[in-house]
Amino acid sequence: MAPAAAHEPEVIRDKAAMRAWSRRRRAEGKAVALVPTMGFLHEGHLSLVSAAVAAAGGPVAVVVSIYVNPSQFAPTEDLATYPSDFAGDLGKLAATGAVAAVFCPPDLYVRGSAGHPVAGVSGGAVSCLEDACGHAHETWVRVEQLEKGLCGSSRPVFFRGVATVVAKLFNIVEPDIAAFGKKDYQQWRVICRMVRDLDFAIKIIGSEIVREADGLAMSSRNVHLSCEEREKALSISRSLVNARTAALNGNNHSQQIKDQIVQTLEEAGGQVDYVEVVEQESLTPVKRIDRPAVICVAAWFGKVRLIDNIEIQTTS
Amino acid sequence: MAPAAAHEPEVIRDKAAMRAWSRRRRAEGKAVALVPTMGFLHEGHLSLVSAAVAAAGGPVAVVVSIYVNPSQFAPTEDLATYPSDFAGDLGKLAATGAVAAVFCPPDLYVRGSAGHPVAGVSGGAVSCLEDACGHAHETWVRVEQLEKGLCGSSRPVFFRGVATVVAKLFNIVEPDIAAFGKKDYQQWRVICRMVRDLDFAIKIIGSEIVREADGLAMSSRNVHLSCEEREKALSISRSLVNARTAALNGNNHSQQIKDQIVQTLEEAGGQVDYVEVVEQESLTPVKRIDRPAVICVAAWFGKVRLIDNIEIQTTS
Repeated sequence: MAPAAAHEPEVIRDKAAMRAWSRRRRAEGKAVALVPTMGFLHEGHLSLVSAAVAAAGGPVAVVVSIYVNPSQFAPTEDLATYPSDFAGDLGKLAATGAVAAVFCPPDLYVRGSAGHPVAGVSGGAVSCLEDACGHAHETWVRVEQLEKGLCGSSRPVFFRGVATVVAKLFNIVEPDIAAFGKKDYQQWRVICRMVRDLDFAIKIIGSEIVREADGLAMSSRNVHLSCEEREKALSISRSLVNARTAALNGNNHSQQIKDQIVQTLEEAGGQVDYVEVVEQESLTPVKRIDRPAVICVAAWFGKVRLIDNIEIQTTS
Repeated sequence: MAPAAAHEPEVIRDKAAMRAWSRRRRAEGKAVALVPTMGFLHEGHLSLVSAAVAAAGGPVAVVVSIYVNPSQFAPTEDLATYPSDFAGDLGKLAATGAVAAVFCPPDLYVRGSAGHPVAGVSGGAVSCLEDACGHAHETWVRVEQLEKGLCGSSRPVFFRGVATVVAKLFNIVEPDIAAFGKKDYQQWRVICRMVRDLDFAIKIIGSEIVREADGLAMSSRNVHLSCEEREKALSISRSLVNARTAALNGNNHSQQIKDQIVQTLEEAGGQVDYVEVVEQESLTPVKRIDRPAVICVAAWFGKVRLIDNIEIQTTS
C-alpha cells in the first residue's frame, strides 16, 4: 500500500535524526527551509510555509518545528496555559501539501538538578528554564541593543530565550532559509541581527501579518479571548490603521500618534503595555515619522497580552 | 608549472569563499576540521593540526584560522602588542603537509559609527570591539557559569568574546571537528559547553599542552618574556608538577596545594593572578582532590600574563 497522502509530513522528534534528514535533503539538491513555531497553528503560520517555498525559488524541503520554548517565558508568564493541538497542527500542515517534515522535540535543553534557582542576567530576571544548576544549560545568545525596549521592557528574558532557541534550531535543522512573521516585529529584527552577527548561512524571510477578516492580527493566544474581549481588541488594529493614514497625511508627530492610540485602546477597555514609534531596522524611537518606521503596540485585554504593529514607508 | 608544493595551504580571506570552500570539501566526502588560532604559531598550534587529523580518522580537510579577535580583549589588555608573523605562520603550516586552507579574514565584525562607547555587560566591562553604535555588532554568546572565575575574574569580557568569535567561525567554516588546546583550559570547557548547549554539530578535541624542553607551556606571548623572566616563569610548570606529585601521594588538600604554588611563584618573582583547584568539567572549586580535578594558574612575569594548568586523575 502506498502512504495515504504523499504530502503527509514526516514527524521527527530526535535532534540527530532531524539533522540527518536535513542533510539528506540538501544532498538531493533541495534547499531546506525552516518555519519555527510554538504550535496551535493558524493561517499566519501557514503563510510562512508559502513564503518559505516562494523564497526558495526552486526545489525545497520545508520543515516546520513545533516547540513551546520554556526559556523565553518568565515564571509569571503563560507557559502553562499556552495552547496546543498537535493533531490539528499536523492536519493543517498536511493540507498545505508543502511541508515535508515536522520537528517536535520533547525537550531541547540539558537540565541539571532541580531546585537550585540560578540568578539570571537582566537585573535578576529568570526564565522558566532556570530551575537548574551544575551541568545544566547555561549558554545564551543575546542581541543586546535590539532586545531592549518594546516587548523587552516587560519581558526581560524573552528575546534571550528566543535568540537562543532559534540558534539551537538553526544548528539542528541547518536550514538555508527560515521564515518569521512580522507580527513579532522585534523578534524578526532580533533574529535578522543574530544571523548577521553570528554569520549563520541562512536567509531570513520576514512575512507580512495575517489578519482575521475584522482586522485582528492572528495569534495562537487569541483563543483565550472572550467574545467581548475579542471585540474590544479590534481597537488595536483599528488604531494602527488610523495612525498610518494620519501619518501619510502629514500628521507624523510620534507623540501625537502614540497619545491617540493609547486613548483608543484605553477607551476600548485595554490596558496598554506600550505604544512606540520606532525606526524599522534599529527599533530606536523616532520623534517624527520621516523615515521608514513601525508603530508597535502591546496591550492586555482581559488576561491576554496581544501585540500588533504597522509599518509606514514615507517618502518625505 | 606545477605549484611549488602540493601541500601549500590555500589562503582564504573572505567569509563566503571560506564557506563555499568548506562545502566543496564536504561534498568530496572529506570531513572539515577547524583549528582556530590568533597566529604567531608554535608547536602547540601544530599539535592541534595533528590532533584534528587523528580525530577525523579518514579523509579530512584541515582549516587553520588566523584572526586576532578584538572582542576578547579589554581596552587595557595587549591587543596592540599581540605578536604576529603571517609569513612565518604560513611556512610552518605548509611544512606540516596537513593543512589545506588558512582562513585569515581582515575583520569579522560589522562596525558602526565610532566614538559612541556602548555600555557592556559584566559590570560595565567593555571589549576592544565596543567603540560602535547603531547597526554595529551586538550579538554575544555567553556561557554564563563556566565563564565565571579563573581567567573570567580578571578578564570579564574574555570568554564572551571567545565564545562569540568561535560561534562565528563555526558558522563560516562549518567544520565537523574543531581542535582547542587544553592550555587554555577554561576556554576549552567553555567551547565544549557552548557546542552542547547550542547544538553545534561539531566534535570538539581538547589537545594536551605542549611544553618547551624546560617545561614552560608554549604560548605566543612567551616571545615578550626577557631571558630572566622566562627563567623565573619556569616556576609555574615546576610548581604544578610538584603539586600533582604531592596530590597523588595523598597531600590533596586544595588550600595547602594553592598556598604552596603561590609561595613558589612569588619567591620566583611572579605576581599571582590566581591559583585554583577545580573540578575538570564544571570548573567549580574543590576542597580536596578526590575526583578528577585540574589546578589552574595565572601569573604575571614582568608585563606578560601567563597561564598554565595540570590535570589530576585520582582513583580515591
